[in-house]
Amino acid sequence: MSKLIQSITSVVFIIMILQPSSVFAANEALMELLKALQENGTIEAKTYQLVKSVAEQESASNKVAATDTVNIEEKIEKAVETRVEEYKKENNEVTINTKGKFEVASNDGDFKFRLGGRVQVDAASYAEDASRQNDGTEFRRVRLFAQGTLSQYWNYKLQYDFTGSGINGLQDAYIDYRGLKPVSIKFGHFKEPFGLQSMSSSKYVMFTERALMSAFAPGRNIGIQLGTHGDNWSLNAGLFGQGRDGAIADDDEGMGVSGRATFAPRFSDNTRLHLGAALSYRNTGSIDSVRFRERPESHVTNSRLVDTGLINADDFTRIGLEAALISGPFSIESEYNYIDINRTNSTLVDLGFSGYYVQGSWFITGESIPYKAQKGTFGKPRVKGVVGKGGVGAWQVAMRFSSLDLNDADINGGEEQNFSLGLNWYTTPNIRLSANYINVLNVNGGASAGDEPDAFQVRAQVEF
Amino acid sequence: MSKLIQSITSVVFIIMILQPSSVFAANEALMELLKALQENGTIEAKTYQLVKSVAEQESASNKVAATDTVNIEEKIEKAVETRVEEYKKENNEVTINTKGKFEVASNDGDFKFRLGGRVQVDAASYAEDASRQNDGTEFRRVRLFAQGTLSQYWNYKLQYDFTGSGINGLQDAYIDYRGLKPVSIKFGHFKEPFGLQSMSSSKYVMFTERALMSAFAPGRNIGIQLGTHGDNWSLNAGLFGQGRDGAIADDDEGMGVSGRATFAPRFSDNTRLHLGAALSYRNTGSIDSVRFRERPESHVTNSRLVDTGLINADDFTRIGLEAALISGPFSIESEYNYIDINRTNSTLVDLGFSGYYVQGSWFITGESIPYKAQKGTFGKPRVKGVVGKGGVGAWQVAMRFSSLDLNDADINGGEEQNFSLGLNWYTTPNIRLSANYINVLNVNGGASAGDEPDAFQVRAQVEF
Amino acid sequence: MSKLIQSITSVVFIIMILQPSSVFAANEALMELLKALQENGTIEAKTYQLVKSVAEQESASNKVAATDTVNIEEKIEKAVETRVEEYKKENNEVTINTKGKFEVASNDGDFKFRLGGRVQVDAASYAEDASRQNDGTEFRRVRLFAQGTLSQYWNYKLQYDFTGSGINGLQDAYIDYRGLKPVSIKFGHFKEPFGLQSMSSSKYVMFTERALMSAFAPGRNIGIQLGTHGDNWSLNAGLFGQGRDGAIADDDEGMGVSGRATFAPRFSDNTRLHLGAALSYRNTGSIDSVRFRERPESHVTNSRLVDTGLINADDFTRIGLEAALISGPFSIESEYNYIDINRTNSTLVDLGFSGYYVQGSWFITGESIPYKAQKGTFGKPRVKGVVGKGGVGAWQVAMRFSSLDLNDADINGGEEQNFSLGLNWYTTPNIRLSANYINVLNVNGGASAGDEPDAFQVRAQVEF
Repeated sequence: MSKLIQSITSVVFIIMILQPSSVFAANEALMELLKALQENGTIEAKTYQLVKSVAEQESASNKVAATDTVNIEEKIEKAVETRVEEYKKENNEVTINTKGKFEVASNDGDFKFRLGGRVQVDAASYAEDASRQNDGTEFRRVRLFAQGTLSQYWNYKLQYDFTGSGINGLQDAYIDYRGLKPVSIKFGHFKEPFGLQSMSSSKYVMFTERALMSAFAPGRNIGIQLGTHGDNWSLNAGLFGQGRDGAIADDDEGMGVSGRATFAPRFSDNTRLHLGAALSYRNTGSIDSVRFRERPESHVTNSRLVDTGLINADDFTRIGLEAALISGPFSIESEYNYIDINRTNSTLVDLGFSGYYVQGSWFITGESIPYKAQKGTFGKPRVKGVVGKGGVGAWQVAMRFSSLDLNDADINGGEEQNFSLGLNWYTTPNIRLSANYINVLNVNGGASAGDEPDAFQVRAQVEF
Repeated sequence: MSKLIQSITSVVFIIMILQPSSVFAANEALMELLKALQENGTIEAKTYQLVKSVAEQESASNKVAATDTVNIEEKIEKAVETRVEEYKKENNEVTINTKGKFEVASNDGDFKFRLGGRVQVDAASYAEDASRQNDGTEFRRVRLFAQGTLSQYWNYKLQYDFTGSGINGLQDAYIDYRGLKPVSIKFGHFKEPFGLQSMSSSKYVMFTERALMSAFAPGRNIGIQLGTHGDNWSLNAGLFGQGRDGAIADDDEGMGVSGRATFAPRFSDNTRLHLGAALSYRNTGSIDSVRFRERPESHVTNSRLVDTGLINADDFTRIGLEAALISGPFSIESEYNYIDINRTNSTLVDLGFSGYYVQGSWFITGESIPYKAQKGTFGKPRVKGVVGKGGVGAWQVAMRFSSLDLNDADINGGEEQNFSLGLNWYTTPNIRLSANYINVLNVNGGASAGDEPDAFQVRAQVEF
Repeated sequence: MSKLIQSITSVVFIIMILQPSSVFAANEALMELLKALQENGTIEAKTYQLVKSVAEQESASNKVAATDTVNIEEKIEKAVETRVEEYKKENNEVTINTKGKFEVASNDGDFKFRLGGRVQVDAASYAEDASRQNDGTEFRRVRLFAQGTLSQYWNYKLQYDFTGSGINGLQDAYIDYRGLKPVSIKFGHFKEPFGLQSMSSSKYVMFTERALMSAFAPGRNIGIQLGTHGDNWSLNAGLFGQGRDGAIADDDEGMGVSGRATFAPRFSDNTRLHLGAALSYRNTGSIDSVRFRERPESHVTNSRLVDTGLINADDFTRIGLEAALISGPFSIESEYNYIDINRTNSTLVDLGFSGYYVQGSWFITGESIPYKAQKGTFGKPRVKGVVGKGGVGAWQVAMRFSSLDLNDADINGGEEQNFSLGLNWYTTPNIRLSANYINVLNVNGGASAGDEPDAFQVRAQVEF
């Protein structure tokens, strides 16, 4: 109960108790006098009775008053709270979230608006081997987004990355309708459902860059998707066009279909298994070609050690398998991708490229990688102690082996294998500093065969 | 009146009524005794009178108390409300609007800040005729804006479209001073006043694209404008430079003057006529040329079936006439544009191009197209039933015939005529899904003479 | 004290005073009767004493009540304020600032979020001399920024300028940690500490463009900086890479070190001296070249009258000296820069270029240029009277002489001297209209030797 009500009621109660007491006293003195007067015969029994009955009526009404005063504490308490609640409804229809992000929401659930962003700034230094790598700094991602809810069931998101130019900077831009539970319908520009590392936010991936096989990730396209989920599983499938801008030359866009299923049984409070599988088919439209290539898990340099070049193709199919185990501060995670390319020249055999990675991490400070079971992705760790407020932040060490094979038949894109060590320091829930060491173990085949540089990279990341 | 006040005052009133009653009762008993004592001769008339007068003084002061208690209900009510209002002023100087948009306003009217945006994502498929059209998807508009009021009379707006690159994405960017009523002064980058469809927001035009003659629309330029309006009329005129970026080559910018007047008598609560006329003159600066061309009312494709090419010209004058009738769920709207081009080579005759359209629509679900009489433009329909909350949204069907003639004298830009059918579904006030069928009826003359493709286009639009 | 409390307590006090008075009166009448009865012998002295003592107990308890009622005003006042404070804590964890800007802050200091921007739109006309200048309009700056505090000690800022394309529009993008007082650590993309006019915001520089010698300003780069300050001094030094994007060709980025110290003794309430010195060293990385050039203090035109062209160089060192005096509405300000270039070809002598300016201003309306001693920069004037609300705004007149010498040894970049007159009109604290007349006095040497145009330029600026 609030202090105000306590104070008011106690004060009022004092009034109630003290004032009547004087009235009762007045009656008491009168009754004493009355008694004395009757006893000494000054007044008759009749007069005595009359005056006494009037006085008793007083007592009765005083008792009513007393009874009422007993309830007054309760009544005022209720009254003040009623008014306070009323005031909240009138004037506080809106809740402003400031727990590490800016969000405004109407209390009726009808409206939500959130504005936020992320900045990732990198510096890298390379131990060059055969080819030139470029030491330097860059902004990896500089994003702003607006996100919200309209009319309760209609969610939207608009996210832009200023490292891109014009429409090429556009990231998420979609509407997500949640009014047909358990199914949600999403349309606009968003990631095709495929892969664990590619569906998880770049803010929370274990290393500064995703593993080599992200060369195969379909990324974001304009499309429509149906999704559903349970407490520990998710299922999404969609139909997608190509890119985010209109036709550039006289080409029809290619189209794709992607689907992903995840299942994540919980073994104990802090142990969880993630299993996932995805399939993605895409035709190349009238562009009739496809290309896969990848930087050496560091983005400051422009060199790609593996690159298929343009391959004439009608369509291609991706398959992805995912597995991960999180147990308290420990995690281990692995994915495998295979891609089959159906070439335009039907006399040429289909091409098959593949990639995989295995990575593990340990939060020295005891945090755990959060898993969003309804999406089948990883999330933002809960930092136990914030730097500047007596804590040391969250410290995570990580290790990765990754491989990408772009050699097949007549295509000699190269096969690369990397070993990486990583350190992530979340100084606060919203700020992450990372250091990565990437060792290119092998490059077999391709234009950069045998070129095996090392990279040392640091990143500062803030999200708001 | 608030419940708190009612409760508090009724409680206090109970105290007031009950307590005095016992006091009155105490007096009553005393008076009875007094009467009895005088009657039986115990006390003298003098004593009786003395005690009685003292008791009557009590009664009088009790009456004052009673009168006061009657006013207490009112007084406390007023007092609590006074404090609540005071509290609002102290702590709630700000109102946050969450009615489908995010806006913060100081309650003194001095400050307003609104952040919002729109996304329009399209997919189109073409029935090609002679030339190649490009099936595919694109973002038509991806805009973010900040808008507000400073020092009460100074409004500003900044709007950017991420489909443009660098400064080319800039839309509205102006200051609008309202302190000199009835005149407002606007300066910065905004639409030159010309035309009904071009002044109305792209969010609410009847079809996904404006009619063919929008080829003539002057669009946004840096300038200064004076405006005034009444309840059913508006008048705006301004002086404008060219574009939004600085000089690129060694060219002086062209300058233009545009003015528009609208008048919109209301015939009944739901019937309104709109009439408008506009004039726009522009010299071409040291660029000395002008070009008009237009896509076939679908923007995913890059083809323009009509195109004047660059015409050497000193200056040109646009004339625009507008008429529209809205009657409940029905609307009909028509515009005509004529453009006269004064060529650099004075031996060549002036050129005259023209365009027009007629379009009508019906809200099956009974909504009406809102008209903003102070601007002479169309606005956002009020959806009667929201999808997801028991409603079906607002459904609008539309039909259009449009024409653009870019053939004159030696210029053979082509003449195009289109017929279109449209469907708009506002699932919520902020989300619109559209489907358009555009049939190119004729292309006479020009490079694409006889090329008459059809287009089927869909759009998802969210504004926030 | 709040009116509610006053009202409530006065009302309650009335109750307290009136009610007891009737009770006392009742006692009084009784005492009169009692006295009369004893006097006429109706009751015995014993009875008289008994009744009197009971009545006196009443009086005593009434006195207690009266004493309590005296404190009630105070108690209720305290009680209501307690509840109001409690309510604020429960429901008003957040403060929304609307004093000319939008900012949300949690009251515990842990979180702050501010969104804002600026627009500068220019129009210029030139009195040409030898070369072509380009009359016209342009947006000089169109910026949006998000800025905030996370976990109390971690500040961030992200600012983008839409006149740039892609990552080239990025301005500030940094994290600033304030948890290690008195030292702050800043990392990301921000201005290298160098120079008074270059460290001060472009919103508040005296003329529409900074003086010619801003050709030497290092501008923003990705880096890390340590800073500290006192009440009237500041010290900052940092290590910086080059630019904001990754490597473009196969070049390693150059690196730089910059440091700046300022000292600003206050002579009286409205008189302050500023002294500053800065040193900046930079190597050119594998790009091995450097270039300095500058527009004629007007940006609409593209012409640069002085330009060194690309100079092959290993590294270069800048020296900057600053002095300024503000005395009430008057200010005078001067800076000098010298740059020493160490050439790649070691047989060539080092190059030395320099520049300086002297400028003064007077606020006719009495305002003063604010000085931020902890940063050593100028800030936003406090406008005394707002236009539209009875005021005339703040009017500032200014004068400048500036010089830039890019001639040395074999490099014939030209030497330019300008004289400028300026007028700034702050109609409100957030809106500034400026008019500048720039007279190019001399161009000695270089490609534009003897080309001495004049410029007349206006700007409208809004910040929000």
